[in-house]
Amino acid sequence: MKRSWLIASLLLIFLSQATADNGYRLWLRYDRIADEATRGAYATLLRSYCIQGNSKTFEVIRKEFELGLPSLLAQPVGYTASATEASLVIGIATDPALNGYEELKALINTIDNEGFVIFSVKNATPGKIVIAGKTDIGALYGAFHFLKLLQTNQKITNLSLSSSPKIKIRILNHWDNLDRTVERGYAGASIWDWHKLPDYIDTRYHDYARANASIGINATVLTNVNANALVLTPMYLEKVKALADVFRPYGIKVYLTARFSAPVEIGGLKTADPVDADVQAWWKNKAREIYTYIPDFGGFVVKANSEGQPGPQNYGRTHADGANLLADALLPYGGVVMWRAFVYDNKVPDDRTKQAYNEFKPLDGKFKSNVIIQVKNGPLDFQPREPFHPLFGGLTKTNIMPEFQITQEYLGFSTHLAYLAPLFKECLEADTYVKGKGSTVANVIGGEIFKNQVTAFAGVANIGSDFNWTGHHFGQANWYAFGRLAWDHQLTSEAIADEWIRMTFSNDATCIDAMKSMMLRSREMLVNYMTPLGLHHIMGYNHHYGPGPWVAGKARQDWTSVYYHRADSLGVGFDRTASGSNALEQYHPEVRKQFASAKVCPEEYLLWFHHLPWDYQMKSGKTLWDDLCFRYYKAVGEVSKMEDTWQRIKGKVDEDRFNHVAAFLSIQRKEAELWRDACVLYFQSFSRKPIPPGLPKPARSLEYYMKLSFPYAPGIKPEW
Amino acid sequence: MKRSWLIASLLLIFLSQATADNGYRLWLRYDRIADEATRGAYATLLRSYCIQGNSKTFEVIRKEFELGLPSLLAQPVGYTASATEASLVIGIATDPALNGYEELKALINTIDNEGFVIFSVKNATPGKIVIAGKTDIGALYGAFHFLKLLQTNQKITNLSLSSSPKIKIRILNHWDNLDRTVERGYAGASIWDWHKLPDYIDTRYHDYARANASIGINATVLTNVNANALVLTPMYLEKVKALADVFRPYGIKVYLTARFSAPVEIGGLKTADPVDADVQAWWKNKAREIYTYIPDFGGFVVKANSEGQPGPQNYGRTHADGANLLADALLPYGGVVMWRAFVYDNKVPDDRTKQAYNEFKPLDGKFKSNVIIQVKNGPLDFQPREPFHPLFGGLTKTNIMPEFQITQEYLGFSTHLAYLAPLFKECLEADTYVKGKGSTVANVIGGEIFKNQVTAFAGVANIGSDFNWTGHHFGQANWYAFGRLAWDHQLTSEAIADEWIRMTFSNDATCIDAMKSMMLRSREMLVNYMTPLGLHHIMGYNHHYGPGPWVAGKARQDWTSVYYHRADSLGVGFDRTASGSNALEQYHPEVRKQFASAKVCPEEYLLWFHHLPWDYQMKSGKTLWDDLCFRYYKAVGEVSKMEDTWQRIKGKVDEDRFNHVAAFLSIQRKEAELWRDACVLYFQSFSRKPIPPGLPKPARSLEYYMKLSFPYAPGIKPEW
Repeated sequence: MKRSWLIASLLLIFLSQATADNGYRLWLRYDRIADEATRGAYATLLRSYCIQGNSKTFEVIRKEFELGLPSLLAQPVGYTASATEASLVIGIATDPALNGYEELKALINTIDNEGFVIFSVKNATPGKIVIAGKTDIGALYGAFHFLKLLQTNQKITNLSLSSSPKIKIRILNHWDNLDRTVERGYAGASIWDWHKLPDYIDTRYHDYARANASIGINATVLTNVNANALVLTPMYLEKVKALADVFRPYGIKVYLTARFSAPVEIGGLKTADPVDADVQAWWKNKAREIYTYIPDFGGFVVKANSEGQPGPQNYGRTHADGANLLADALLPYGGVVMWRAFVYDNKVPDDRTKQAYNEFKPLDGKFKSNVIIQVKNGPLDFQPREPFHPLFGGLTKTNIMPEFQITQEYLGFSTHLAYLAPLFKECLEADTYVKGKGSTVANVIGGEIFKNQVTAFAGVANIGSDFNWTGHHFGQANWYAFGRLAWDHQLTSEAIADEWIRMTFSNDATCIDAMKSMMLRSREMLVNYMTPLGLHHIMGYNHHYGPGPWVAGKARQDWTSVYYHRADSLGVGFDRTASGSNALEQYHPEVRKQFASAKVCPEEYLLWFHHLPWDYQMKSGKTLWDDLCFRYYKAVGEVSKMEDTWQRIKGKVDEDRFNHVAAFLSIQRKEAELWRDACVLYFQSFSRKPIPPGLPKPARSLEYYMKLSFPYAPGIKPEW
Repeated sequence: MKRSWLIASLLLIFLSQATADNGYRLWLRYDRIADEATRGAYATLLRSYCIQGNSKTFEVIRKEFELGLPSLLAQPVGYTASATEASLVIGIATDPALNGYEELKALINTIDNEGFVIFSVKNATPGKIVIAGKTDIGALYGAFHFLKLLQTNQKITNLSLSSSPKIKIRILNHWDNLDRTVERGYAGASIWDWHKLPDYIDTRYHDYARANASIGINATVLTNVNANALVLTPMYLEKVKALADVFRPYGIKVYLTARFSAPVEIGGLKTADPVDADVQAWWKNKAREIYTYIPDFGGFVVKANSEGQPGPQNYGRTHADGANLLADALLPYGGVVMWRAFVYDNKVPDDRTKQAYNEFKPLDGKFKSNVIIQVKNGPLDFQPREPFHPLFGGLTKTNIMPEFQITQEYLGFSTHLAYLAPLFKECLEADTYVKGKGSTVANVIGGEIFKNQVTAFAGVANIGSDFNWTGHHFGQANWYAFGRLAWDHQLTSEAIADEWIRMTFSNDATCIDAMKSMMLRSREMLVNYMTPLGLHHIMGYNHHYGPGPWVAGKARQDWTSVYYHRADSLGVGFDRTASGSNALEQYHPEVRKQFASAKVCPEEYLLWFHHLPWDYQMKSGKTLWDDLCFRYYKAVGEVSKMEDTWQRIKGKVDEDRFNHVAAFLSIQRKEAELWRDACVLYFQSFSRKPIPPGLPKPARSLEYYMKLSFPYAPGIKPEW
């Protein structure tokens, strides 16, 4: 063996041992480009780069290029101070070194302050590429986009592209508690090590910011919506400031959850009534104090009068009174209040899915301009499938934003592969008809329909202290997809999967095909082994782990499963048409038409809107009961197929991640079987019909499944 | 640049970016040996190795050699099936390929079943080394020892060494809960991902086992002594079995904590009374069941009738009745009961430090042969300094083992650098005089004094899900030192530090000197900024974070600080002589002599045994008050010096770990100042004397420190 290769191979041995690829690097891997022709072409073109800018953000760009370019190209790519000499130049569009390019003049007006342009300079030999933004954050987004072009093996000749985000505030919601537990977190503990802040700055905070910036996320709520007022005290504000200081160069603003009763709990007041002058003064002072720590503080996210959280209704006031109280305090500093519409009071309504609309529709137009109502994608609670929330299009004089759940509270925790871009897009592309056809949720929240002053897009993070951040390696794809869709909801699920796979795993066509086929089908498959045909909220109580269609007799009816599936000897499903709860009335007449009769209602929403007899005839020609069974069984079969698909790319993916995913797929199959068997047996106790011929009978009895207990399922503080 | 070095350096760049040394590899790093002469000598000698054995353990050995040898030597070291040809041979001593060596015959009888021998074959050219044990686990220990010789740059010519452990059961106690919290854990969550077991086997479980085997730890208690009976149910036993299967090839046996009331909680019985026949049958059946899952299950660890845990006293029975109940159940399978002596009932005694002795001394001789009493190193509770526990030497007819606390509950959590080998050794080397001079604690627990049937050595683990396992990079040294001392208590603290530094950081002399100077002084320094002169138990309430000498008025007097320091206008300290609680009487007369009068009592134990006036004259010539102040201030100065020492080796340690340690040292200094200022001001409120001239006054008031609140300090479930 030649000495050179000996050294190289020894280093590779060492490397593979040292790193044992744990997925920590997410999609920012920058491994040597495998395809030699592509790498050679890049290497010929990219000999040096010049950073035309001087700020902490440009320092971030420099580090990212230092890290990425030589490693991807497997050759030194030197820094040069000369924009003329460099083959890659990045800067702000107004910089004299850049603003002479004709190409820039043509592109620059197409972008906003966060946008970027990337173009090849015409007639430059051997080639020159310029990346520019109107701001340094725009340039940073451009830098990450350019690196992505390399990571995904795109052509980088004759470039002429520009991009701006469709939504202003692209924000992660961390449901992280101050004791480092994460509500509905399935990837270890909170990454915020509050106890050691502000003195110890984990390098992970920087990597978190890098990852977010690379997909355009520009805001983060550090704390749980089930809020703790302590985070608003000086001891914690110092810690929040330390994180904000880390995130600022990456263009990320920090938000906190504001506990409505904070004036009482940490302020020493007797009330938190929003019309009380002392309360108003307290919040104003608190806002002023926060901004002395964090001059670019983003604002508050509030869960009020919901699931036991305090709120303005405790004092006979409205959500508008409460939200405006905080909005007034933040307004002088440009802060925003994200007021959640996920509310319900102690009276169980005729249909819980109606409550948010019922409470907020009458308040439309009463919120201050820096309030935005944060609405879950569907009217219930992050189920595997829900119709879009009727407040989209329902509120016409109020800023409104969607809240998606990236963490898989109801979708198999962190062990189920379920690619969520199709779920997010299903909501975004739904048509509210509020201003006629084409009034999609995306257009409503993007401000195209009502010219909202604030636009935002929230996702409940699936991030924790696990080495790979998200528990499942494929969970990273949901974080990624959330960011990409917040930037541009028109991207297809497939396009996002394609670039994520290339960056995260491989540019190998076999790998891409295999993983894409797994990802694109996975959410529909999961719906079918958990909650087919519009069933919903039939999971285990409290921890939400595993099936629990039998859950009944809890403190509130609308915390039980039987309330939602309404199975009886005659049939199954929740009638939300005029003959039932009439939740359907909250939608535009054009939307109602799509769901009002079982005959026209798409089958995936059938039991969401209709209670139907067990022998109702489905489009397949089967009875409802048979169709339900077939869906459960077919979906479990699909998990097995996914396992096979994964095995076929063995050797093409590093061993660590391969084995990790294989083990998780095996858990997913077992749990899919659990869902199928438990649900089929349970519903059979009502339908009293046989499992259709050809389908194997569950090995255990319904009683067995009902007795299973998982007191330490993750994501909640245990009750047991 | 030559192509070879270009490739090598690019790979190195890539490597450094990819790994960002997070300390995950612990002391098993196997980086290329930096000293070229040493590496060259090894490389000349070690061209190939032969594994003479066929078992999962030998498979572990093979993997470790594959990982370690080429990487350390930076050259291929091939495997060969020929023991004759190989330059390194490992196997069992009786193997025909080994048993012809004269050198082996000379050494083999010096070792026990876990021991190993390593020798150079005489007159072999260019050299041949043989590693042998009587068992494959012995060989494994030999393999790790040999790798350590390389890692620490020792000569490997003319080898002739053998080693056996002095203690049979060398066991980690994990205080890990089933919800992944860790009581008194400061390094993230539990590494046991119970929810995903048994299906997902984290590679970390293997690396945990490797690390333990490399230092001779051969047992682990997976669950918290504040026990949950659920772990004894089939659902959890399947998970425990999965871990036991991982650990077995590494020679590690699994133990569980047994909740005394389990027969009621999971068995459906009405009582857990040890004389009840149904209870006895339940435990026998439970033991049989456990052994069907785990044929080499180690046994139970029990905390009974202590801090609210149930126990035999609930039924009017003794600790012996309780321990023997479980011992009888385990006996057919060779299992052991480790019954903790850390007990106290609801009656507050005149001196809590007396209670364990008072309860267990009368039971001496009443425990079954497979019971061992697990006794904390000191009579109180893991304080920075305590005298040795009087049960060492006190029990003469009962198996007895020490329990050390590796996790730093009272020693600054995971942010304080405090090397604990000196603390462990202080206890081990203390002389009980029970059979005359030389009856050290080490000899008592080693079985030399009373010929105990079971010997064991326990440490409460400091391990968690943090990337570097222990929070502080130097916390790894305490895990390491615990294992090394369990194997051989005669090793010096310095020798252990030396090898740990070389394996974990560097063989560079400057580094070694600097780190050793920090480590060896650190525990004494910590004692002096927290609890100098024998003060104890003056930390924050419940979470034990920070100073709390003012803690008073709790449910039990002996949970308060004022109970222990007894400061008043006249003086300070706990009189444990005949004029006080007379706890001293629990020791041998020769020991009593050392402590009975303040004049002879070593000053480090002064206020543990004596209440003395503020103007008591110390050996320094200063008054007690002045001496106390000087110690607090001097110790904080030492932390600053430690920071300086660390800065001096900047560039000699990888950047990630360097910055990590530097940040933690800064936290340590701030917290040392907090301890100093709070304690000095608090005790001053009694002494009413000025802080001695030359010492700066604390910047804040006592009231300020007393008002500090840390509701989310880690290591407990929050109360707030």
